[in-house]
Amino acid sequence: MSANPISRVRLGSGREFDLIRAFLGDPEGLPAGVEIGPGDDAAVLEGGWVVSTDISVEDVHFRRSWLTDEEIGYRAAAAALSDLAAMAAVPVGVLVSMAAPRGGRINVAEVQGGVGAAAASVGAAVIGGDLSRSPGPLFLDVVVLGRTSRPVSRAGARVGDELWVSGTLGTGAAAIHEWEAGTAPPEAVRARFARPIPRVALARALADAGVPVAMLDLSDGLAGDAGHLAAASGVGIVIEEASVPIDPAARAVLGAEGALEAALHGGEDFEICFAARPGTVEPDAHPVPLTRVGRVVAGEGVHIETASGEIRPAERGGYDHWSPA
Amino acid sequence: MSANPISRVRLGSGREFDLIRAFLGDPEGLPAGVEIGPGDDAAVLEGGWVVSTDISVEDVHFRRSWLTDEEIGYRAAAAALSDLAAMAAVPVGVLVSMAAPRGGRINVAEVQGGVGAAAASVGAAVIGGDLSRSPGPLFLDVVVLGRTSRPVSRAGARVGDELWVSGTLGTGAAAIHEWEAGTAPPEAVRARFARPIPRVALARALADAGVPVAMLDLSDGLAGDAGHLAAASGVGIVIEEASVPIDPAARAVLGAEGALEAALHGGEDFEICFAARPGTVEPDAHPVPLTRVGRVVAGEGVHIETASGEIRPAERGGYDHWSPA
Repeated sequence: MSANPISRVRLGSGREFDLIRAFLGDPEGLPAGVEIGPGDDAAVLEGGWVVSTDISVEDVHFRRSWLTDEEIGYRAAAAALSDLAAMAAVPVGVLVSMAAPRGGRINVAEVQGGVGAAAASVGAAVIGGDLSRSPGPLFLDVVVLGRTSRPVSRAGARVGDELWVSGTLGTGAAAIHEWEAGTAPPEAVRARFARPIPRVALARALADAGVPVAMLDLSDGLAGDAGHLAAASGVGIVIEEASVPIDPAARAVLGAEGALEAALHGGEDFEICFAARPGTVEPDAHPVPLTRVGRVVAGEGVHIETASGEIRPAERGGYDHWSPA
Repeated sequence: MSANPISRVRLGSGREFDLIRAFLGDPEGLPAGVEIGPGDDAAVLEGGWVVSTDISVEDVHFRRSWLTDEEIGYRAAAAALSDLAAMAAVPVGVLVSMAAPRGGRINVAEVQGGVGAAAASVGAAVIGGDLSRSPGPLFLDVVVLGRTSRPVSRAGARVGDELWVSGTLGTGAAAIHEWEAGTAPPEAVRARFARPIPRVALARALADAGVPVAMLDLSDGLAGDAGHLAAASGVGIVIEEASVPIDPAARAVLGAEGALEAALHGGEDFEICFAARPGTVEPDAHPVPLTRVGRVVAGEGVHIETASGEIRPAERGGYDHWSPA
């Protein structure tokens, strides 16, 4: 059992998260040697090792018609490495478990090449894994190992903090929207879906400057992920709608309202989101855009402040994660 | 790049292992902080952390008609934990990634309960994971984390050493044989398939006594796994057929010849196999039977010495891992 209060991390509301909570078990009662357990972006082990795992399943997370085999591996690994960025850890090694259909439909070496390329892009290497055949879809599980002497968990935000995000949002949803409509997405949109950039360097630079007091990566949409940060920190969060940095390419595809909805509830943009004490973020000090999107308030849950100043609770609403017909 | 010679571990011969070699990449050129990489039972990280990952796929590694949902989780986790035993590591934490079909065909909580029970059986706990739906079979990937200050790798055997195995062999193949023939396996056979015992305590006791100089767990059959140990150690191995400890229950199911074939080439018995300097093993000092099954010789590869004293190369021969029709 760890005495570390940040080992007790809570997820936001929602049926999916109820299931994950049940699945992962009680975050309390951690074994000796484990400093942060279930409920954060990654587990943290004594000695500063950070470990996380991320599944990618064909026809759930991607379709083969959208991506090359190399891109399937790249995206799966980048998504997993994004969890290390979320902890401000330095990636070291990757283990990749793959179950691939027989008969040459998938080129296993190409997928693995993509995993290796994503790992190499952040200074890590493949150090192990497992390989099986699959009687169904391609299944990838990427385990990432990184190190940090000072992990940034989801807990640690307090009332009065600012909420920030990196980059721009909505692109992943825009890519899926186009593919599902039978249209090729614009190249800039497609590239961001196929080869997401884990924000490792940015997160490290921010953490070295002591800026983020709570952080995660955006895999459930800004509203959903802010809900996890709020729950873990025991605070509420107000997102200022007009400040949300929408990718112009996503707006061109989805329209203004659709792109905002995608940014708030759409999922896998793999940017980082963090709370910081007021005035501590220097956006010009980093090569990736940083945008203040909201504030930490007393209470709980996530609230959306519209351009007209109205505040409403952030429901997951009409936006569903993509799933094939 | 590690200067540790045991980081350069080689697998035995065979097409499956060629694919795994290509899949896992070059075991040389390990990143800083990684002491043992691809090709051993687990990767070893600076600070004594040991990590491995093991896939279980429905209709490849098991059928749902054979096992309860809880047993599916238990077996998958026990198989993964067996890799920690192979390194003489103490299990600490488990991460479980699962892609499960929708619609209640699989009880996710039951599977997870089995994973947790297997982890608890060796003093570990679930500390993270990922959950997705699957449009096909159930996929499980179990990541295991353990610790040891002195891992026992596959390299380290030298000419003149003895080769030992724990327990008895052939049981897993016997269980599958019965199920595939439409017969319920004897309860003792079924139980060993459903709830294998990772040889963690035994391996720790042996390692504490400094006995095993090279070790792995039996997942590809004694001949195949001895081949990995031989390749990693740069030696040859002679297995003395008459010494191989066959499970009497497996012999009753498969016949003497079939049970021997299963022990040599049949796969997942999850016993440990190790090389030791002559005379250093004290079989009576341990609660699990230990049997000397062969010797380490100059040269390479695995050779079988028959009861009549004839020596032939160990081919993988006619025995195929189970796969559904």
